[in-house]
Amino acid sequence: MKKTINIAIAGLGTVGSSTVNILQQQATLLAARTGTSIKIVAVSARDATKKRDCDISACRFETDAHKLAEAKDVDIVVELMGGSEGAARTLVEAALKNGKHVVTANKALIATHGTALARLAEENNVSLCFEAAVAGGIPILKLLREGLAANQTRRAMGILNGTCNYILTHMWEEKRSFDDVLAEAQKLGYAEADPTFDVDGIDTAHKLAILTAIAYGTTPDISRLHIEGIRNITLLDMEFAHELGYAIKLLGITRKTEHGILQRVHPCMVPKQTSIARVSGVFNAVDLDTDAAGEVFIEGRGAGGDPTASAVIADICDVARGLTSYPFGVAASSLTPPNMLPMASLESAYYIRLGVIDKPGVLADITAIFRDHGISMQSFLQHGKQAGGKVYMVGTTHTTTEDSMQQALLKIAAQPSIVEQPFSLRIEE
Amino acid sequence: MKKTINIAIAGLGTVGSSTVNILQQQATLLAARTGTSIKIVAVSARDATKKRDCDISACRFETDAHKLAEAKDVDIVVELMGGSEGAARTLVEAALKNGKHVVTANKALIATHGTALARLAEENNVSLCFEAAVAGGIPILKLLREGLAANQTRRAMGILNGTCNYILTHMWEEKRSFDDVLAEAQKLGYAEADPTFDVDGIDTAHKLAILTAIAYGTTPDISRLHIEGIRNITLLDMEFAHELGYAIKLLGITRKTEHGILQRVHPCMVPKQTSIARVSGVFNAVDLDTDAAGEVFIEGRGAGGDPTASAVIADICDVARGLTSYPFGVAASSLTPPNMLPMASLESAYYIRLGVIDKPGVLADITAIFRDHGISMQSFLQHGKQAGGKVYMVGTTHTTTEDSMQQALLKIAAQPSIVEQPFSLRIEE
Repeated sequence: MKKTINIAIAGLGTVGSSTVNILQQQATLLAARTGTSIKIVAVSARDATKKRDCDISACRFETDAHKLAEAKDVDIVVELMGGSEGAARTLVEAALKNGKHVVTANKALIATHGTALARLAEENNVSLCFEAAVAGGIPILKLLREGLAANQTRRAMGILNGTCNYILTHMWEEKRSFDDVLAEAQKLGYAEADPTFDVDGIDTAHKLAILTAIAYGTTPDISRLHIEGIRNITLLDMEFAHELGYAIKLLGITRKTEHGILQRVHPCMVPKQTSIARVSGVFNAVDLDTDAAGEVFIEGRGAGGDPTASAVIADICDVARGLTSYPFGVAASSLTPPNMLPMASLESAYYIRLGVIDKPGVLADITAIFRDHGISMQSFLQHGKQAGGKVYMVGTTHTTTEDSMQQALLKIAAQPSIVEQPFSLRIEE
Repeated sequence: MKKTINIAIAGLGTVGSSTVNILQQQATLLAARTGTSIKIVAVSARDATKKRDCDISACRFETDAHKLAEAKDVDIVVELMGGSEGAARTLVEAALKNGKHVVTANKALIATHGTALARLAEENNVSLCFEAAVAGGIPILKLLREGLAANQTRRAMGILNGTCNYILTHMWEEKRSFDDVLAEAQKLGYAEADPTFDVDGIDTAHKLAILTAIAYGTTPDISRLHIEGIRNITLLDMEFAHELGYAIKLLGITRKTEHGILQRVHPCMVPKQTSIARVSGVFNAVDLDTDAAGEVFIEGRGAGGDPTASAVIADICDVARGLTSYPFGVAASSLTPPNMLPMASLESAYYIRLGVIDKPGVLADITAIFRDHGISMQSFLQHGKQAGGKVYMVGTTHTTTEDSMQQALLKIAAQPSIVEQPFSLRIEE
């Protein structure tokens, strides 16, 4: 006779409904795979009367999610409400304290309070699982924590926000502006009415902080993470990038060197022929550079009901099978605060676009500034000529430091021949 | 105080040496990740005096691998000798019977005797792990078995043999013949002196049989698997493929429909812009089409000492952490013999190349044969003209059955205007 594990689901939006549906439809398969019968005993949502895309008639309904954390018959609480504070946090804390396993898709919660929650889980000898928090249907956390357990990660970089990748893909493919594609994405439901969280890189930053913690066995730290979004990306720069052999992607990148860890979210130019450059639309991808396995690249759906539910249920299956790993790859008690490096210490190549009045001596002035900051140019081209004599000087540099580049750009911006705010992008090879 | 797990390694070739080195160099990291100190207590190899790329001075040396299975102080036996029979099989069976966990990289052994070994492991309540048997450094088995546990796999297809992918990549990029590149690969150590196992698709078939078993919860069955290798691939067909928008890759493909499972290994034409078409050199990749997560694509190093050792050690870490899943995703006792479909039932589009004497009526005769077999052409072009009047007619079809296509090709081969054996490739979109 099979044993049974009882779960309760808090939040019945897109992901919650998909989770209920898949658990019901694949009950036989999941029982065969886990050796356990997985039963949804309770659900919670704000509105008991709302029509939903799933059948919850056999489950106890609670309007107060907190009841799930207290229910005697619940083994796993699945938190799908979202938000780093409030009801979600309270629910997860209470569930762990009451000795219940927790599965959550809540990246903001884990990026912000992950260390304390992991400790709570270990103290109470239960699992805290959050595969669905990063890259949806791609099991990247399990891959990093278990599949590549033998490896030191040199660099992890990823396209972690489908909304941004959708916008950048459509801007380039349809030669449209950021505002235009954003408006369309909002209409199609790929972007929120307030798109800040996505397009300003905050969502990517939450996910990157979790990846960093697992890759390096450090406490997740969203506060020391350089974040830039994609609002400033123009079609013009995409065209120059294309000409230079690059695509523009919003990446989250974490890298460990002997000096420390640098984690950053910003648009990047990446060589067109690389796998990451070719990830299009709402897809996510992660590229890992590891010491033993080498480069590992994985691509899949980063959002949506079913892909995210796939990750939620994988976590539920792990708990059902008794597979418990440390939430962040090492014991919570041994997670160390990371030695985070400042963005100024970044070493990178750069793309630069300068709007200048085309006069004799302008190029000499600009190249002198770069030289004075120890920046070596790889290419420098003058592009087009507009009314009023404005031309674009577009260039790429060899590897330099962020600090030198920012100082040089400040100097350049102050030149009388410069008629537009200088624009730069980091190049990630 | 940390607990300790004792391992014994049988086989000290490239993978064995890398495994020893990484376990020693990353001892602290692995202990932090598993909560367990992993200790190599014994090793075995044929020649005790051979100079090796690893330090085994602290380990007991056995020339008889079987001793490892009997040693009281060994918790995990790591089998890295290879071969589906003989010493490897005996060792693994004895180890499992003696209550020791087994980690192996041996795809031939698992593809051939996997069901019996999985039963033995379950009867003795120990783990049988073989992540390294498929796609080297890519943790594809864990991904499929655990990360995507919520999913039904519609299709899994992969580039699973680095040697073949190296040969095909270099043939195309350097416009060289199969024989020429094979000879080079042999010189560089990417291909064996007897390359049969790789270039005839047998190695890919072993790996595919394991993937099929895990994807569908069936007994691995190498005997009912259609296998073709890459010896017949010519640069000419690569050029036609390119013109038509495809690349040629050796794929292992397994697909489940309502009628059954079809598993096959053969060269395919794949659209150039797909991720799998762009996998180059010795890299491996797997593309999964699943019902909940959708498409998941993963690429990495499929062979070599360190990447394979990465997978071996990931398995060791799982055992050390107490993470035991069913070797083939469901209990060995509930693995069912697959309902394997015959190759003749395959539905596919095809590429065809026919060497004909260019005379009036030839095209009419050929297209009539296709029509009579219910095959609808998508394109048909005449290419070049050589001395003696031989021309190539190159075409692609819409989806038809393998059976119809093979019958049509037999009829076409018997036409007097056909001066070369008709050549065809399946197209995998």
